[in-house]
Amino acid sequence: MKGQNFTPFHVFMLLFSFPSAGQRSEKHPSNLRFSLRKEQTINGVDMMTTSDRLEQQIRFILEIDKLKTVLRRSYLLNGSRYENSAEHSWHLAVMALVLAEHANEPVDLCRVLKMLLVHDIVEIDAGDTYCYDEVANQDKAERERRAAERLFGLLPPDQRDELRALWEEFEARQTPEAKFAAALDRLMPLMHNFFTGGRSWQEHGVTLEQVLERNSPTAEGSATLWAFAKRLIDQAVEQGLLPSRSASQT
Amino acid sequence: MKGQNFTPFHVFMLLFSFPSAGQRSEKHPSNLRFSLRKEQTINGVDMMTTSDRLEQQIRFILEIDKLKTVLRRSYLLNGSRYENSAEHSWHLAVMALVLAEHANEPVDLCRVLKMLLVHDIVEIDAGDTYCYDEVANQDKAERERRAAERLFGLLPPDQRDELRALWEEFEARQTPEAKFAAALDRLMPLMHNFFTGGRSWQEHGVTLEQVLERNSPTAEGSATLWAFAKRLIDQAVEQGLLPSRSASQT
Repeated sequence: MKGQNFTPFHVFMLLFSFPSAGQRSEKHPSNLRFSLRKEQTINGVDMMTTSDRLEQQIRFILEIDKLKTVLRRSYLLNGSRYENSAEHSWHLAVMALVLAEHANEPVDLCRVLKMLLVHDIVEIDAGDTYCYDEVANQDKAERERRAAERLFGLLPPDQRDELRALWEEFEARQTPEAKFAAALDRLMPLMHNFFTGGRSWQEHGVTLEQVLERNSPTAEGSATLWAFAKRLIDQAVEQGLLPSRSASQT
Repeated sequence: MKGQNFTPFHVFMLLFSFPSAGQRSEKHPSNLRFSLRKEQTINGVDMMTTSDRLEQQIRFILEIDKLKTVLRRSYLLNGSRYENSAEHSWHLAVMALVLAEHANEPVDLCRVLKMLLVHDIVEIDAGDTYCYDEVANQDKAERERRAAERLFGLLPPDQRDELRALWEEFEARQTPEAKFAAALDRLMPLMHNFFTGGRSWQEHGVTLEQVLERNSPTAEGSATLWAFAKRLIDQAVEQGLLPSRSASQT
């Protein structure tokens, strides 16, 4: 069977080892990471043959499983638990599919989807930095830069560069695609907060002013969605879900 | 502010109500659903203005949050819990991004991504049907058809038809894109099983023959990935993670 179906690309076969299937990782520690490190591998390390390139791709795919254990501050709409960054990324991608017509400028939907699919991968190393945590946001850029280096660096060089460029484009919010993707990344947590009674806002003492500042970039990506977001924010204030700073100081 | 940033498309404004933000849904019951039904809405139902179309889109986006509570039989690689169908969909989409070059035929990556993003949405109503559960698979098609009707039916007609067509294309496994998407949908659970020591196979008494049958369609989507899958299966057998039916009967 060896190499039976391989393309010429895979003629150059190399041995490599995978984490042993017989060894189950321990529960991830409180920092929401887990490890499949080679050096932990015990009994029955099996050497499998495939191309270097496929090995790198598979290692990356296995590594990003960890994004499912990175928790955000948003609750699911049923309030049962915090949302994780992997399912959040999926939700934003479907949102993009459905709401693309509301972008201010025509967008390449495929690029928006790719950007949203990879935009949070750096959180595997850098953690989810709560947008209203001023202290944590001070070194966020540097932590995420290092994370991007390591995580996208698992891929073959061409794909490392492509995915890293998508992430950087998202972060820079300059292109129509990045502006629209950022609008969705702000609108969804706003909806999660609103439709769970402002629970996460209240737990973290978030004020109207913070929410307005955080969400205002939505306007750059979609005037329509920004109008919708502002209505949600107005309703949240009216329903007492979101105090204004001045009100909370009196 | 009303309509301030709206495009001409939104001139026709309609009133509609959203589930009250002040009311938190109860924890989802064991069938992994929760409800944001209108008739449950109490105190402070607020009427918001927007277009019919945007309302339908937003309702769909809120509804699919439920996919995050649909549990599969695969464990996360760190073994901490079952994977849910939303994060699984994200993982497959990133996989497609990285592995598209291994498809047997050239694929339209954007269509593969869209297909993978929506392929499990029917599970919100139909549940995740375990691939090795023969009884549950008997009425799977009918349950999922009804689910597609309701869930995609939340969208405006053009988008309802588009997403439903993507789902049907995925299910039919006839186009290059659908064959490749299906290959990924089989390979990832195989990897999850292998790298968690065959845990889910063992818990459900799954045999080598079942795994081979389930995974063989991978060859139609990608000979390279099928060769890789067969190596994993061989290793699983060698390590005693996956008994063959004949062996388990002796």
